[in-house]
Amino acid sequence: MERLVVIGGDAAGMSAASQARRLRGPDELEIVAFERSHFASYSACGIPYWVGGAVPERDRLIARTPEEHRARAIDLRMRTEVTELDVPGQRVRSRDLESGAESWTGFDKLVIATGARPVRPPLPGIDAPGVHGVQTLDDGQALLDTLAGTRGRRAVVVGAGYIGVEMAEALLNHGFEVTVVNRGEQPMATLDPDMGRLVHEAMDGMGITTVDGAEVSKVLTGPDGRVRAVATQDAEYPADVVVLGIGVEPETALAGAAGLPLGSYGGLLTDLAMRVRGHENIWAGGDCVEVLDLVSGRERHVPLGTHANKHGQVIGAGVGGGYATFPGVVGTAVSKVCDLEIARTGLREKDAREVGLRFVAVTVGSTSRAGYYPGAAPMTVKMLAERRTGRLLGVQIVGREGAGKRVDIAAVALTAGMTVERMTALDLGYAPPFSPVWDPVLVAARKAAAAVGAAER
Amino acid sequence: MERLVVIGGDAAGMSAASQARRLRGPDELEIVAFERSHFASYSACGIPYWVGGAVPERDRLIARTPEEHRARAIDLRMRTEVTELDVPGQRVRSRDLESGAESWTGFDKLVIATGARPVRPPLPGIDAPGVHGVQTLDDGQALLDTLAGTRGRRAVVVGAGYIGVEMAEALLNHGFEVTVVNRGEQPMATLDPDMGRLVHEAMDGMGITTVDGAEVSKVLTGPDGRVRAVATQDAEYPADVVVLGIGVEPETALAGAAGLPLGSYGGLLTDLAMRVRGHENIWAGGDCVEVLDLVSGRERHVPLGTHANKHGQVIGAGVGGGYATFPGVVGTAVSKVCDLEIARTGLREKDAREVGLRFVAVTVGSTSRAGYYPGAAPMTVKMLAERRTGRLLGVQIVGREGAGKRVDIAAVALTAGMTVERMTALDLGYAPPFSPVWDPVLVAARKAAAAVGAAER
Repeated sequence: MERLVVIGGDAAGMSAASQARRLRGPDELEIVAFERSHFASYSACGIPYWVGGAVPERDRLIARTPEEHRARAIDLRMRTEVTELDVPGQRVRSRDLESGAESWTGFDKLVIATGARPVRPPLPGIDAPGVHGVQTLDDGQALLDTLAGTRGRRAVVVGAGYIGVEMAEALLNHGFEVTVVNRGEQPMATLDPDMGRLVHEAMDGMGITTVDGAEVSKVLTGPDGRVRAVATQDAEYPADVVVLGIGVEPETALAGAAGLPLGSYGGLLTDLAMRVRGHENIWAGGDCVEVLDLVSGRERHVPLGTHANKHGQVIGAGVGGGYATFPGVVGTAVSKVCDLEIARTGLREKDAREVGLRFVAVTVGSTSRAGYYPGAAPMTVKMLAERRTGRLLGVQIVGREGAGKRVDIAAVALTAGMTVERMTALDLGYAPPFSPVWDPVLVAARKAAAAVGAAER
Repeated sequence: MERLVVIGGDAAGMSAASQARRLRGPDELEIVAFERSHFASYSACGIPYWVGGAVPERDRLIARTPEEHRARAIDLRMRTEVTELDVPGQRVRSRDLESGAESWTGFDKLVIATGARPVRPPLPGIDAPGVHGVQTLDDGQALLDTLAGTRGRRAVVVGAGYIGVEMAEALLNHGFEVTVVNRGEQPMATLDPDMGRLVHEAMDGMGITTVDGAEVSKVLTGPDGRVRAVATQDAEYPADVVVLGIGVEPETALAGAAGLPLGSYGGLLTDLAMRVRGHENIWAGGDCVEVLDLVSGRERHVPLGTHANKHGQVIGAGVGGGYATFPGVVGTAVSKVCDLEIARTGLREKDAREVGLRFVAVTVGSTSRAGYYPGAAPMTVKMLAERRTGRLLGVQIVGREGAGKRVDIAAVALTAGMTVERMTALDLGYAPPFSPVWDPVLVAARKAAAAVGAAER
């Protein structure tokens, strides 16, 4: 009987294990999965909403318990860390974090799904009590405990990416005065600065203070050793609690030490079937891999649960003797801060320049519903299209209710390599409660098509 | 100087006129437009929401007044009906409906945008006071007057298509007891019956009585001559007010009499630049034309404001010396009844069979947001894919908030000729407030891809 070993018991790893189990029963395939934390198969993306109170209980974020996995004949070993990967020997060394016991486990097939680790710059004071990451359920619980035990009501969020802005909302919900300290020119560095500025303005309107262009130099502590402020080169921001939302890096120390191929972002490199390049029997997926960006043609690190789940399906099919591939991403993301919806797909101006594309960029204002329909909310759509070909390169959206998921229109069009001219005639759903007669994305496509034409004259 | 004559002053006609004016100034092109009603350039799709009270004032539905058009050097003649079209003589005869005066106007270029007329079967009593269509602003006002002046609170809506269900909601808002009498097997004949059944059940839950398989045979009147009931073969439904929502037909009597080419639905046939086939200088657009259905390869009649506006742009470009085409539709539509969202694109099972396609059909249940996120609402997605090729053929969605506009994902995928297998890897926007980690459309695509595979084994 063959043995599959899975390193990492979250989205990618356990999706792969489950899908492999569906295709090959326990008589054919033994499955052993190692997870170092207390939890498997949970939605890390849901943590800001649990911390913020929208999701009432931690366990709502757990898609499947260890017991449920075990009931499906997956030998999931919790609190067990894989400490060494011996590729030629086809075995992994693991340590039981409770007992400290170590042992080797051989594999015929291996899935690496070690995820990502939060960036935590080695700043003075960064490990002080009151400074929190929000990567895991344990992190979330620790932060909730701090929020409940803190009299002061000043919070600083370091970083203004997705996690940063989502945590700003969560802390607002707890009645904190929130300051977001952000290294970039504007919040949401995944947007162009002009669109990030709209996010900044909207956050102002919500009472969130956003400080741009500010690099944190240290975390200051009080006499009790707890955090009291965050310092940049220029200023100090008093803080009773600090949340780090600086981003994540692929967790590939193990794979790197084993000599597996890593890309420029430090993520594992795979083929389209999610097999680690050059290794027939090792797959990798989720936040520890780099993925092909179909628009730029380059590998990128895009840590998102939705990709991890897809990777897991593809890997499980491969391990189980089926066939599936993950063709790549177009870079779609959507988020919200209170009622502000933020979405993007494809390339920003800077991305397009980096890969040598010449483009036009247009921005339009429109509304989410017919202007006369109640709840019609303003939204701004920015669209990039390649010169000469008119091919869609990217879309960014900032608006209110109904704005964010419109990015899917562009995500599909990007995948199909559609031109903005063709997009002007897209047959999108129209009725006054759902859209103006020209959907905002169509309005942007019309302007982009005109700009492409003008640029070639 | 050339003269452009436009017959019909609503979406298609006035978009065409405006776009032509943008491209060619009043020194180059004279524009005369005839409109028989009291209104130009208004949103007919908004009438149910105005009648239902969501839109407070009629004038909110008017995109541009006659005066605004005239200020842009468009000679818009209101309450003037074109009664004859002389194609060889390049002229139209019109009658001023106020004075009765008739005259001929020559044209170098002609745009036919005569719209659609509601189907009004020649049933006994159908013209009785209290029986209303809802095609025009005048119709809407007349219905509102009736609603205000009626003591009784029983309403019957004839027809359960988009207008029918939207009017059911509008009448509920006025406190009426609403019965929808529907000829089809289920409401929403633009859906397959299994999906229509979900609409029926949801309407039950809203307190709307839906009678399926019921053909109206007459309208019964009381001693005062006003409507008192609607009769089918089997039953009578007491009614203080009756709203007809049976659908519309292309208004092409004028064009037909002039010998212009009509299709099997009675709509004008055009080329891709929206020129009437065989006529270099005559264009047609909006509800009076048939359009190419890109999925079935057949001409269809799809009266929708969003198409009419696109036609107008394309026609205006052509008249103005530019270049644009309308490639066709994929049959996307979205609507709602109270909080139920209903959407469809592409082919139903019956449509696919009619054109000889073999297909698989799958249905999945999912939610609009992550299951643990507040407001996650159930939705049902049905997907059709071609056997052998796996090409997407159609999608139908019934759900609550966040369900309807997801149809756009499928509309773009249909336009691109995407397979359901490719769709499983679409990079759609994911965050817990916006979608489960597998978007419902992806869940359907996975099931459809599996069914395509199974069908070929």
